[in-house]
Amino acid sequence: MIKVAVFGYGTVGSGVVQVIDDNNKLISDRIGDGIEVKYILDIKDFPGDKNEKKLVKDIDIILNDPEINIVCETMGGTRFAYPYTKSALEKGISVCTSNKELVAAYGPELLETAKKNNCSYLFEASVGGGIPIIRPMNTSLAPENIEKITGILNGTTNYMLTKMSKEGSSYEDVLKEAQALGYAELNPEADVEGFDACRKIAILASLMTGKTVNFEEIYTEGITKITSKDFEYAKKMGKAIKLLAIAENKDGELTAMVAPCMIGDEHPLYNVNGVFNGIFVTGNMVDDLMFYGSGAGKLPTASAVVSDAIECARNLGRTLDCVWKDEKMTLSDRKDKEREFFVRVDAAQKDNALSLFEGSDGVSLDDNEFAFITPKMSERAFDDKIVRLDKVKSVIRVEA
Amino acid sequence: MIKVAVFGYGTVGSGVVQVIDDNNKLISDRIGDGIEVKYILDIKDFPGDKNEKKLVKDIDIILNDPEINIVCETMGGTRFAYPYTKSALEKGISVCTSNKELVAAYGPELLETAKKNNCSYLFEASVGGGIPIIRPMNTSLAPENIEKITGILNGTTNYMLTKMSKEGSSYEDVLKEAQALGYAELNPEADVEGFDACRKIAILASLMTGKTVNFEEIYTEGITKITSKDFEYAKKMGKAIKLLAIAENKDGELTAMVAPCMIGDEHPLYNVNGVFNGIFVTGNMVDDLMFYGSGAGKLPTASAVVSDAIECARNLGRTLDCVWKDEKMTLSDRKDKEREFFVRVDAAQKDNALSLFEGSDGVSLDDNEFAFITPKMSERAFDDKIVRLDKVKSVIRVEA
Repeated sequence: MIKVAVFGYGTVGSGVVQVIDDNNKLISDRIGDGIEVKYILDIKDFPGDKNEKKLVKDIDIILNDPEINIVCETMGGTRFAYPYTKSALEKGISVCTSNKELVAAYGPELLETAKKNNCSYLFEASVGGGIPIIRPMNTSLAPENIEKITGILNGTTNYMLTKMSKEGSSYEDVLKEAQALGYAELNPEADVEGFDACRKIAILASLMTGKTVNFEEIYTEGITKITSKDFEYAKKMGKAIKLLAIAENKDGELTAMVAPCMIGDEHPLYNVNGVFNGIFVTGNMVDDLMFYGSGAGKLPTASAVVSDAIECARNLGRTLDCVWKDEKMTLSDRKDKEREFFVRVDAAQKDNALSLFEGSDGVSLDDNEFAFITPKMSERAFDDKIVRLDKVKSVIRVEA
Repeated sequence: MIKVAVFGYGTVGSGVVQVIDDNNKLISDRIGDGIEVKYILDIKDFPGDKNEKKLVKDIDIILNDPEINIVCETMGGTRFAYPYTKSALEKGISVCTSNKELVAAYGPELLETAKKNNCSYLFEASVGGGIPIIRPMNTSLAPENIEKITGILNGTTNYMLTKMSKEGSSYEDVLKEAQALGYAELNPEADVEGFDACRKIAILASLMTGKTVNFEEIYTEGITKITSKDFEYAKKMGKAIKLLAIAENKDGELTAMVAPCMIGDEHPLYNVNGVFNGIFVTGNMVDDLMFYGSGAGKLPTASAVVSDAIECARNLGRTLDCVWKDEKMTLSDRKDKEREFFVRVDAAQKDNALSLFEGSDGVSLDDNEFAFITPKMSERAFDDKIVRLDKVKSVIRVEA
């Protein structure tokens, strides 16, 4: 019998317990052994909860129980999760986590600790919720030189952008609605400013290169400046506006960013709507792949954590390793990256704009303003020109 | 140093050699050991080929070389592939294959042989070409009760249907074009009659249930009767026509079929065009997932074979098992399955049709004929009614 401890009895943690309970028979069949949750660690009390007897407040009860081989860490944050994870791994207990902050901040160190102690540190649920992406990158894509990853990695902002697109609502209105529905937090900064997506693309870029990509170095722009007017233009041009997290590895030079981008209707991410996530991967042998699914939510995320626990149960006493060295991966200057840009200006600036950005395609919705898509140019060249244009209302990158 | 033998030096086999050669450094990093192809088994001669020295005609040279731990079988068919695979596994040599015929016909037996000999039989490349689907089902989806799989599993027919849709061409014309481009075989039966997709969904349905689904029992209908007129109606209704392979597991009752179906523009498979494949999976915890990518082609398929070889290299001396028992899975009567149907009839039959299929939505493109979508009904009820209608020109299932 495999005995599991769950750290944190919040949304994902209670989901982990539910997945293991509800699908117990088939999970046991697939492991070839029974599985149960023995402990749940949480500082809170849950009087009357059906798992009340499993709740403990002292981590040492878990770490000192030789029956525990696997921990599911769903606490979030790093303050407690870091020392708890480290202590478990040092005891040879494998840890499966949904905690992207911890993975982005301490991934290689915790992987190394796991390796030294013949156990595993797995983090499928840290990116893309229920979408299999971390394990496919470590196994299915092991023969690949991964050239590019383009992801819609945050369900909250994708829900908001989809609403704005379909209903013509303002940013402020959809944010209020998302908060009322529980899709967005009362302090929505981590989602709407792109910080959440930034940590996730840092994790994927680290696996892509095998070195450590520091999330703090990734250029990150949120969706707070996107207006319903931008969506009117996007629709007219057959494009969608998505918050994309992009990592591109060209001849060993890595660029990465998070920013709202326009994409055309032929792009596989064009139809990834609502709270869904999509991760588009290009390898040098396999060509284009896309992984699509629920990027968040209690049960999908919990399912990913449990899939890691099953892998640990099948591999007790050994390390499921991945190549993610502590060595720092230096990011190349994203300003060298060439792309098209969508720009909206005051109508009076039309001639100025077309002379500055020669070869642009213009489009207009009314007499008050003028919009255009520039030819392909480096971000540096674009930045040099755009400061010379007055009354710019909006700038959005175009992703091919 | 991991030494690999490749069985069959055709399209996929030569791709396997190329992937291992071209990405050798990064593959070695990810295995933690070097890897090279030591032998290539083929009855043909390849004078002047750069791998000429590795070519052998006698399988015993390979089976008796203790350095060989992994075989990549890309021969296709069962006549030689079956005994060769069996012999390798009996020697404790893991076999990674792209051969869907062999997997569909002998999967559980070969898995059992591998298990007895502490090696693995892996078949990622047998379904969906380069798309990771077999390993995700065995690992990432191990916590899931998989309720439904809907796949576009054949690139040739998807290329043809996409062409017909976009260019209004006839079935005969796109078939000729696909043959000229090498996408379709001169004898295209396996693709256009749905037999290839049928074997693939049989494999996925077996992994879904853990029992053996006999591909010969799956109702299979090809695309040969689809006309450009059907596409005109589909477009008018905002739908696509796709050859879908569907397996549905409801309360332990499995239904499966391969048939052309209409799907709406909200369906994640709607935009899977050309030679791409898409596999849409619904689990009881993770909800909806989709896997998208190149469903065929030399390098994508070879990449999937090599990913299996890497897994074997990381797990020498042990079995990477999956639950696929020899026990037969009985298919439930697909005629109980309820769905809508698209029907085209002679215009004179309009009143008859609407009285037989009460509550149908009608649509018309010209004065000669009338088309409609029936209310949801079982296939049995539909079959009973449709025989009472004269001058039926076309029937296509509608997949929600």
